[in-house]
Amino acid sequence: MSDQRRPAGRQPDLGDMDVGDFRDAAHGVADRVADYLDGLERLPVVPRVRPGDVRAQLPAQAPARGEPLERILDDYARLIEPNVTHWQHPGFMAYFSSTASGPAILGEWLAAGLNSNVMFWSNAPASTELEQTVIDWLRRMYGLPAEFDGMLCDTASVSSLLALVAARHAVPGLDSRRRGLAGRDDVGPLVLYVSAEAHMSIDKAAIVIGVGTDGVRRVPVDEDFRMRPDALRRAIAEDRAAGRQPFCVVGTLGTTSSTSIDPAGALADICQAEGLWLHLDAAYGGNAAIVPEYRGLFAGWERAQSIVVNPHKWMFTPFDASLLLFRDAEAFRAAFSIVPDYISTPSGDVRNYNEYGIQLGRRFRALKLWMQIRWFGVEGLASRIHEHCRMAQELTAWVDADSEWERMAPVPLSTVCFRWIGRGELSDDVVEAVNRGILEAVNATGRYYLSPTRLAGRYTLRVTIGNPRQTMTHVRGVWEALREAAADVVHGGS
Amino acid sequence: MSDQRRPAGRQPDLGDMDVGDFRDAAHGVADRVADYLDGLERLPVVPRVRPGDVRAQLPAQAPARGEPLERILDDYARLIEPNVTHWQHPGFMAYFSSTASGPAILGEWLAAGLNSNVMFWSNAPASTELEQTVIDWLRRMYGLPAEFDGMLCDTASVSSLLALVAARHAVPGLDSRRRGLAGRDDVGPLVLYVSAEAHMSIDKAAIVIGVGTDGVRRVPVDEDFRMRPDALRRAIAEDRAAGRQPFCVVGTLGTTSSTSIDPAGALADICQAEGLWLHLDAAYGGNAAIVPEYRGLFAGWERAQSIVVNPHKWMFTPFDASLLLFRDAEAFRAAFSIVPDYISTPSGDVRNYNEYGIQLGRRFRALKLWMQIRWFGVEGLASRIHEHCRMAQELTAWVDADSEWERMAPVPLSTVCFRWIGRGELSDDVVEAVNRGILEAVNATGRYYLSPTRLAGRYTLRVTIGNPRQTMTHVRGVWEALREAAADVVHGGS
Repeated sequence: MSDQRRPAGRQPDLGDMDVGDFRDAAHGVADRVADYLDGLERLPVVPRVRPGDVRAQLPAQAPARGEPLERILDDYARLIEPNVTHWQHPGFMAYFSSTASGPAILGEWLAAGLNSNVMFWSNAPASTELEQTVIDWLRRMYGLPAEFDGMLCDTASVSSLLALVAARHAVPGLDSRRRGLAGRDDVGPLVLYVSAEAHMSIDKAAIVIGVGTDGVRRVPVDEDFRMRPDALRRAIAEDRAAGRQPFCVVGTLGTTSSTSIDPAGALADICQAEGLWLHLDAAYGGNAAIVPEYRGLFAGWERAQSIVVNPHKWMFTPFDASLLLFRDAEAFRAAFSIVPDYISTPSGDVRNYNEYGIQLGRRFRALKLWMQIRWFGVEGLASRIHEHCRMAQELTAWVDADSEWERMAPVPLSTVCFRWIGRGELSDDVVEAVNRGILEAVNATGRYYLSPTRLAGRYTLRVTIGNPRQTMTHVRGVWEALREAAADVVHGGS
Repeated sequence: MSDQRRPAGRQPDLGDMDVGDFRDAAHGVADRVADYLDGLERLPVVPRVRPGDVRAQLPAQAPARGEPLERILDDYARLIEPNVTHWQHPGFMAYFSSTASGPAILGEWLAAGLNSNVMFWSNAPASTELEQTVIDWLRRMYGLPAEFDGMLCDTASVSSLLALVAARHAVPGLDSRRRGLAGRDDVGPLVLYVSAEAHMSIDKAAIVIGVGTDGVRRVPVDEDFRMRPDALRRAIAEDRAAGRQPFCVVGTLGTTSSTSIDPAGALADICQAEGLWLHLDAAYGGNAAIVPEYRGLFAGWERAQSIVVNPHKWMFTPFDASLLLFRDAEAFRAAFSIVPDYISTPSGDVRNYNEYGIQLGRRFRALKLWMQIRWFGVEGLASRIHEHCRMAQELTAWVDADSEWERMAPVPLSTVCFRWIGRGELSDDVVEAVNRGILEAVNATGRYYLSPTRLAGRYTLRVTIGNPRQTMTHVRGVWEALREAAADVVHGGS
């Protein structure tokens, strides 16, 4: 392409893409992404591809010679874009919403251009200080006290893993950082506590840190799927009596199945009395604290040692951005910091984020957050989150008003769990089969995408709201689709 | 802004940015990034800011009301862009290069627009299959056999952590996934082996998984900073005799300080004889295997159980993209897989990547790799990497030819380690002080950015090459700057 625009001394076949060519292509990509966002609702949420369809159309080997960008972008448009599941689509109501808003997408674009790697202050000064600023912004937005500091991680899985390593490090006399856990006769089996509804990321973290799944005590929940403090207290006493070593309680503020909210204050009381670390997984739910009237749901969370909230879940931030907040930054630095000869950092009061976690390399995630928080404004984010909860309440009211449907859990936030039960005379097996059929039929419309779960042993449908592109049109639409599917399945099956 | 362009039924203050506004802003950002890449060399590599300068100019609280995007982008241009350390700058010769090429930046942009979260096949079909394809492309590009499968991770820190968890899980009878490591009398202290020059990410992984730093045996290196197989063999025997339990050897193919390359074949022999897992950290160096003539440096790496290579280091991929290759995918799935009720995946032959690692959420990293591999072509990538090594050899020749400078390590790849020694009559302390002064002076020019290390106890300067924007102009320039700085420091200090 335009060789004449290349700066002198740069060999075209040994350099990067010519900047003029990049500029032209970048404008094309800008239009492509805008077109995608504009046309989302013309696409089925879940593409109609079968396993292997895409791969079969991709060459088994990379090309030896470079190809023109136009051809690559054509293949993207033909083969990739239509064949992803569209997380951006307002009909995506499965799992939890994870949608990328316009201003935050642009933040990712700028970050990709800079390629700033936020390892430590001196190789990322503005990026480090913007991260510090944004963390404090978020902390205030969630209504948490100034004692909390934190860092941006990739996922809640990693944020919680870091918290558990710090919790383990804080066990007096354990010194697992130096001595490890194996082959010691001065340590009992370590135990941590989660509710029966907690996310599997805690089990994975327990596996990774050498606690093992045997060391994960699943505390029973009440009828609203919240951890029972009395049961927690009893489990801790039993473990201590048996010579095991409790070290951490993980509460969930917004569980993945039903968005139930463990009683943070009661957990904090127990942790304080027992000398245990309290970590709170508020990956989805914590974002609701941006709305002042919902903060009461989390009362007591300000007493935790660590909290994870994911802006990439319900704050419209492109994946990935998980906020780990901690009360004692030094507890994390003590657990993780290693400063070898090949890393030189200035002395003085600077934050070197890699010392607080596992990853040395860290993406510049603060930029997109800064841009989108400013563009929406705190009140703008709060009003959208409030609206999602309000829409969930409308759906809840329809479910409650229809005797052929049964709500399966309270709806404290923006996710509704329910199932079809018909006239109430069918066995659980038949009801499950019908609900499986309903889910399949609704997803097959291409207009909506729902995921199921199981609550109190029962197969359950979920509708989650959390995309700023969602309106009551979509909520009404999915409810109609559900009822039509139920009629079809029951009719077809009878 | 342009309310009239909003689709019917979307409340402007509850939705996302209007798509028309997004499109306009996206074009502005496209130009902004192109301007940035075009003007890189007019910027000092390291900004002239002091700790706190940037933060002091940022408000302590997020704005309550949304702000216009123009104002946010103005602040970006004024406050953020000029105050990052410019990893993209061809004068950035510190640590290891991590530069984002044009076609790969565009891949990140498309990925940010899609926001595809590559958890499991059904919520990311094309993204999952493109990842499978790209992993196989990379595997072939590195000349590794078809037995290797793998996944894309964020960082080598995490790739190596996953490998060590899998290695621990593979210890017969240990069952640390279920039983953990603490409070067991059937397990000795676990030990893993690295060279004295290995990266601290292995120490961090050992801390995390409950092995502890006491369980990291640092095997002595030879005069070229490579792990000594005889010393490894002896260390294993000593540990076994003392009742400890060796489980893993981590070799480094391209150490961070000197890019020394451990003898993979000899390590594989030992691991095979001893029944140990061999993990190879080739985060930087492995990329050189794209050049067929360099593959001999890594001979034997094809016998490892797991290998990490970072395209975001020396393959011009925007941060982050770390490739974890493994010989036995089932070993990773056995270590990590948890499939709860709230995740539904189709049966059949699909890859659900979250089952092979810690993170459930995973960015769509394959897209940028696919785009840039096709744009450069395999030969195009190889010729650039080859050119970087060739330029490093030129610098090496100049260092070797100048009696006032001493080379500190062999130069197998694209990084040169050396120090000023003057006429050879000065104490090590004085030499170190002079070299510290040289580094400071070169970095203060703003044209180059170097980082130091320590080799055999001696303070050492490093020049690393690996950015496709680098040419001999930059290599000659940094050598001149070093010699000028030496003259100034010695003159100024005498």
